[in-house]
Amino acid sequence: MNRYIACALLAGCTITATAAAKTMSEVLAASAPADWRTLDPANLVYMETTAGQVIMELAPQFAPKHVDNIRALIRENYFDGLSINRVQDNFVVQWGDPDAKKPIRTAQRKIADPEFTRPSQGLAFTVLPDPDTYAPQVGFVDGFPAARDPATSTAWLTHCYASVGVGRDNAADSGSGVELYVVIGHAPRQLDRNITTVGRVVQGVELLSALPRGDDAMGFYAKAEKRVAITSVRVAADLPESQRVVLEALRTDTPAFTALIEARRNRTDAWYKVPAGHIDLCSVPLPVRKKKV
Amino acid sequence: MNRYIACALLAGCTITATAAAKTMSEVLAASAPADWRTLDPANLVYMETTAGQVIMELAPQFAPKHVDNIRALIRENYFDGLSINRVQDNFVVQWGDPDAKKPIRTAQRKIADPEFTRPSQGLAFTVLPDPDTYAPQVGFVDGFPAARDPATSTAWLTHCYASVGVGRDNAADSGSGVELYVVIGHAPRQLDRNITTVGRVVQGVELLSALPRGDDAMGFYAKAEKRVAITSVRVAADLPESQRVVLEALRTDTPAFTALIEARRNRTDAWYKVPAGHIDLCSVPLPVRKKKV
Repeated sequence: MNRYIACALLAGCTITATAAAKTMSEVLAASAPADWRTLDPANLVYMETTAGQVIMELAPQFAPKHVDNIRALIRENYFDGLSINRVQDNFVVQWGDPDAKKPIRTAQRKIADPEFTRPSQGLAFTVLPDPDTYAPQVGFVDGFPAARDPATSTAWLTHCYASVGVGRDNAADSGSGVELYVVIGHAPRQLDRNITTVGRVVQGVELLSALPRGDDAMGFYAKAEKRVAITSVRVAADLPESQRVVLEALRTDTPAFTALIEARRNRTDAWYKVPAGHIDLCSVPLPVRKKKV
Repeated sequence: MNRYIACALLAGCTITATAAAKTMSEVLAASAPADWRTLDPANLVYMETTAGQVIMELAPQFAPKHVDNIRALIRENYFDGLSINRVQDNFVVQWGDPDAKKPIRTAQRKIADPEFTRPSQGLAFTVLPDPDTYAPQVGFVDGFPAARDPATSTAWLTHCYASVGVGRDNAADSGSGVELYVVIGHAPRQLDRNITTVGRVVQGVELLSALPRGDDAMGFYAKAEKRVAITSVRVAADLPESQRVVLEALRTDTPAFTALIEARRNRTDAWYKVPAGHIDLCSVPLPVRKKKV
């Protein structure tokens, strides 16, 4: 029996028009304005590079101290004139000061609390129904892929394609935001709970993933001239409205998003012969679009 | 209790020197020549492009008809002068004849049997102990990531980073090998059992993954001049030995490989604070190196 017919036979079953849509484009076409949230300019970062503009959304609800420090670094123009120094295939793109010499004026170089996890209480967590290799439970919080462990009541952002994290040395408290990285390959989930994850790229990740791979160990560029220059990094809220890119993201706590997950768990496009019946956390699309103003 | 100490206390426990190694480099350093297999030149394909040389290993044990046909296409020089036409971020690089006009002289344009799966019987399957989102069981067969379903006694190659597949239209039997693709993003496991998977890239995948993304729908290059030229494609066995690249891969049916999996399930490098305790099929490294001759 079709589950929508089954639903019609159940008291209190609330599959909506969007939930009955069959493909991702149908789900998006059927979505209402309230299914979308405008990205908060205080959490939006524009990174201008010689390869183009990359836009990140920060997640202060997961790493408030690191996000604050990244904003502080941006506001003292710390990143302006630095470079992308590492492009490791199927892993990460990383930027910062290749010589670790640039002075830090107002921000911190060390943050005692690594913020690898946080209490799961207080987070609206949309649970993915499928088994995950790494975590007891995975899903979405405020538009970010995340995991939680009911046994310890902790939650954390997961490493998926386009996730943004804080590079660190061996000491857990050695990262502060002066080195940042973006995942450009298969989800390196072994990093989860081992490093501070602060957000994700919401526009332009393909400019980073298409960069030439570094030829030195761990994908660092052996020669300085291969590095990709960062001309400026800004918090959207600090720019005049005329210079902002207004983006909206599909909310992940709505029936529309649940319908999207279902549309991707079991694809009904003519091309698919065997619907997977499942979806991996990092394969769930997180749609972002320019907001019509 | 340390599991190696536990092992020492058990009759018949066979953890070897390599299995006790703690990091991937230690496992590889401790491996014996017999832990490696020389890649069969009959299954090795060299693709020369203006971006460099890409080497693929074909898996005839999974898709014999398609592999035979790909060899036939190569031997009639079908791919020479064609191009990479599609680079879709976090998905695939695809090549073939953008105009679908090049005549096929000896190979087939259609293969009735899509070879999406095969009987699991007769395959040496090294099972990964971790849960998988998509398949009842995953692991490795002859160096390739694979899955199997005990309920149906079928097995199939899985889509991981660097996997090579046969592009097709909506009809299940519409692929033959004239269009091939390589995965360059997070494992698109929803493709498993929906498309013919014929092997994987064993050298040079980073040349494909770093190509500029296509600007048209599905990552196709809108303008012909953006396409990346394929100068020649050859089966290694058809070349004189002096022109061959002799590669060897860590066998996936050895204690050394089991030790490698364990080293990556629970990383003991000083950097890691919380070993994952698990590993995703597509995160297991499949080491390939130039053979010393």
